[in-house]
Amino acid sequence: MTARQGTGASLAAWFAANRARLLEDLNALIRIPSVSALPAHREDMDRAAAWLVERLRAAGVPHAELLATAGNPLAFGAWQATDPDAPTALIYGHYDTQPADPFDEWETPPFEPTVRDGRLYARGASDDKGNLLIPIAVAEAFGQIDGAPPINLLFLFEGEEEIGSPSLRPALDTFRDRLGADVAISADSAMWSQEQPSLVLASKGLAGVQLDARGAAGDLHSGLHGGMVPNPLAALATVLASMKDAEGRITIDGFFAGVEPLGERERAEIAAVPFDEAAYAASLGLGATVGDPAYSALERNWARPTLDINGMWGGFQGAGSKTVIPAEAHAKITCRLVPGQEPAAVIAAIGRHVATHTPPGVTITVTSVAGSSRAYAIDPEHPALLAASEAIHNVYGVDPLLIRLGGTLPVAEFFKADLGIDTILLAWEMPDENLHGPNEFFRLENFDHGFKVYADLLTRLGTLGLARRAPRTGTARTDTVAD
Amino acid sequence: MTARQGTGASLAAWFAANRARLLEDLNALIRIPSVSALPAHREDMDRAAAWLVERLRAAGVPHAELLATAGNPLAFGAWQATDPDAPTALIYGHYDTQPADPFDEWETPPFEPTVRDGRLYARGASDDKGNLLIPIAVAEAFGQIDGAPPINLLFLFEGEEEIGSPSLRPALDTFRDRLGADVAISADSAMWSQEQPSLVLASKGLAGVQLDARGAAGDLHSGLHGGMVPNPLAALATVLASMKDAEGRITIDGFFAGVEPLGERERAEIAAVPFDEAAYAASLGLGATVGDPAYSALERNWARPTLDINGMWGGFQGAGSKTVIPAEAHAKITCRLVPGQEPAAVIAAIGRHVATHTPPGVTITVTSVAGSSRAYAIDPEHPALLAASEAIHNVYGVDPLLIRLGGTLPVAEFFKADLGIDTILLAWEMPDENLHGPNEFFRLENFDHGFKVYADLLTRLGTLGLARRAPRTGTARTDTVAD
Repeated sequence: MTARQGTGASLAAWFAANRARLLEDLNALIRIPSVSALPAHREDMDRAAAWLVERLRAAGVPHAELLATAGNPLAFGAWQATDPDAPTALIYGHYDTQPADPFDEWETPPFEPTVRDGRLYARGASDDKGNLLIPIAVAEAFGQIDGAPPINLLFLFEGEEEIGSPSLRPALDTFRDRLGADVAISADSAMWSQEQPSLVLASKGLAGVQLDARGAAGDLHSGLHGGMVPNPLAALATVLASMKDAEGRITIDGFFAGVEPLGERERAEIAAVPFDEAAYAASLGLGATVGDPAYSALERNWARPTLDINGMWGGFQGAGSKTVIPAEAHAKITCRLVPGQEPAAVIAAIGRHVATHTPPGVTITVTSVAGSSRAYAIDPEHPALLAASEAIHNVYGVDPLLIRLGGTLPVAEFFKADLGIDTILLAWEMPDENLHGPNEFFRLENFDHGFKVYADLLTRLGTLGLARRAPRTGTARTDTVAD
Repeated sequence: MTARQGTGASLAAWFAANRARLLEDLNALIRIPSVSALPAHREDMDRAAAWLVERLRAAGVPHAELLATAGNPLAFGAWQATDPDAPTALIYGHYDTQPADPFDEWETPPFEPTVRDGRLYARGASDDKGNLLIPIAVAEAFGQIDGAPPINLLFLFEGEEEIGSPSLRPALDTFRDRLGADVAISADSAMWSQEQPSLVLASKGLAGVQLDARGAAGDLHSGLHGGMVPNPLAALATVLASMKDAEGRITIDGFFAGVEPLGERERAEIAAVPFDEAAYAASLGLGATVGDPAYSALERNWARPTLDINGMWGGFQGAGSKTVIPAEAHAKITCRLVPGQEPAAVIAAIGRHVATHTPPGVTITVTSVAGSSRAYAIDPEHPALLAASEAIHNVYGVDPLLIRLGGTLPVAEFFKADLGIDTILLAWEMPDENLHGPNEFFRLENFDHGFKVYADLLTRLGTLGLARRAPRTGTARTDTVAD
């Protein structure tokens, strides 16, 4: 099945005629330094959200508005297809960016978009401003050519993705009656490589804890007290060391509760992915990958839960030496979870492990860190996923690689749990585009690829009878769209 | 034998008349934030040294000057007794202090001396500024009453004690011809308790290392790379945890090379010391002491080598969470050594242990920290030690407890090795005075006790025919003093 030839040709012509204007729009959005982590940019968050609402209206979206949350507002839009029985896709993206520091490592200013060699350099260029504009542009094109998009579209752009989306989930509940959809499409996602398009089958969950170790009531002189008192840094090191064995297997009792053994199909899919472990390790300055030898590196990253110490500190950190036995020591841990694991159960298992492995004389408290989420996985036979695969094949001439993510995409799990819909992850964030570091960039040719794939996908979705995967709540869709 | 009654009464009157002024002087010295570990205080070191030279001159010391070293200068003074055959004591102290951080745990600013309940709160109040002023005040009193002290006095105040005295030992060689003495008296020492004066028979050596762990070439996203790359914080925790067994015994091969088993006399002397382990632990907010159960807590602190992690850091230490796999992790370790241990051999043993216990994928370098020293011990029958014991008995009405120190007094070992003299350790640093932590304080009544004991001791030493324990080098003493 392919996109309608007539509209397809018109879409291509429309895109060619409008590309320069669309990229100017992207530059305008990038120039708003919408850094969600930094309070100094609070007003920029509102400006970016308002810009998006205006941009949706300019695209022809009949209903566009700001939705207030406990934090940064959502930019929301709704556009009904001509066919009232068409399915509805909820298109997701985020207008917030990571901080840009260290500024002095940028070759050009992070919020002044600059094109070099077909790459647009700027904070947020790829993650996610460049990518979220793609479906807006596609909707605009359909509107100008056909008068309406081929399916009902909802747009939902949040401003807190980079800080863990704390307001999104309550907002999904508050605005549930506007968000009825058959499938979500996230314009925030990784792509395998520039040569090899991909679709995401699964992403991991997240559970984080902080460990706070306490020994004596205060810091002590190691001469006056050495040999007699507990050292919380040593105790914390002992507890942390006990969490994995010599080959990197996690040894926390209960940690793997609910984890299914890797299936043959899953192992085969992962093995089919071209991944050169040696080249990967060398690219990071390492001699080899490390971890449980029962699994390949990609299996460990994609399909097995992981545990990492993200930070640890205590005692004297200055130059020279200070002969102190510190009173406190601290560590931060996050775990990436696979389907079947409950974040709360993982945190409880860590708590029990710490309690049973803490050396005498030290107390270690375990506090969960906000931002937990379950893993997400989509049925590889989901019709919208198959449609996306066909759209990619149609544009690229190759099948997408079916990949998994070692990272966490909480929105996919939120949409599944709260709206009852699956999410197709479709965006062009390449692994080399410095997404959270200095000199982030977006390949402008992917704006072209993205336009074509999104246009093809929306057209295909219009021809599918997408099964509603969960009972609708709230009012009927037509009311929602007109709301 | 007691101090001359006439001078003794005059000394008491002189002290009563001058005490307030002396404490103002102490405040002035404390206000100079002479933190030797922090480069930002480099000029304060010079200011404190110059202040001491001026203070020696004001006390009547005929010869006082700065002695330049490779690091912070020495404040030096020499004052000849009326009797040219009197023995010579080299009085030692240090004008540098530990850093004051964490500042927010101080009830009053660390470099603004504040008296509460007879205690002077400030960084350096007890260690060592309050204590080093005692012998200066005693010398001043003798000068004003008798025209000169009862024995020849040399003053040597260094500015690097808290960073391991790196410049002192070369300076002892450079200025050897000014430093001929029969005995050293250190005004930097611990006292058993406010009720129970004490004299020190032994102190420990010191060996320090920094461990620097490196994994990948840069910090990595735990989602993109988790399960595949080494975590240097985890590796460092594993290595540190491997250095002791579950009961606190050090398990580093070669660490105990040269350590003699505890002798019966030593164990009996230590057992004779009234030490309530439970009360000690409770005073620190602990349920019990911890360590190798084959030894009492005091034996472990005084007569067995110890190893402590003084600081550790790596990765993210801010609020919330950051899903980073850090590229680096660091730890600082110091060991307290007993007689027979060579610091270099201990550091080499740690290096071998780290090399054989580092998990795959991480490199850990071990760098020795300047300031190593051997342990020190004095003959319990040394005549100056006996004189100090009598002086204490005369002032307190009780014999001093004969104790050992878990801490390190490298100068005693330096004076023994380089000047051939033993050191009497005589100062009033109490175990509860937060010497290296926030809210350090000095009990002002100990300024009074110290004045009396030092005055008595110097008087007694004038009546002893102190045997020269090593051949003098350099010029004759009278020349030295007149230099």
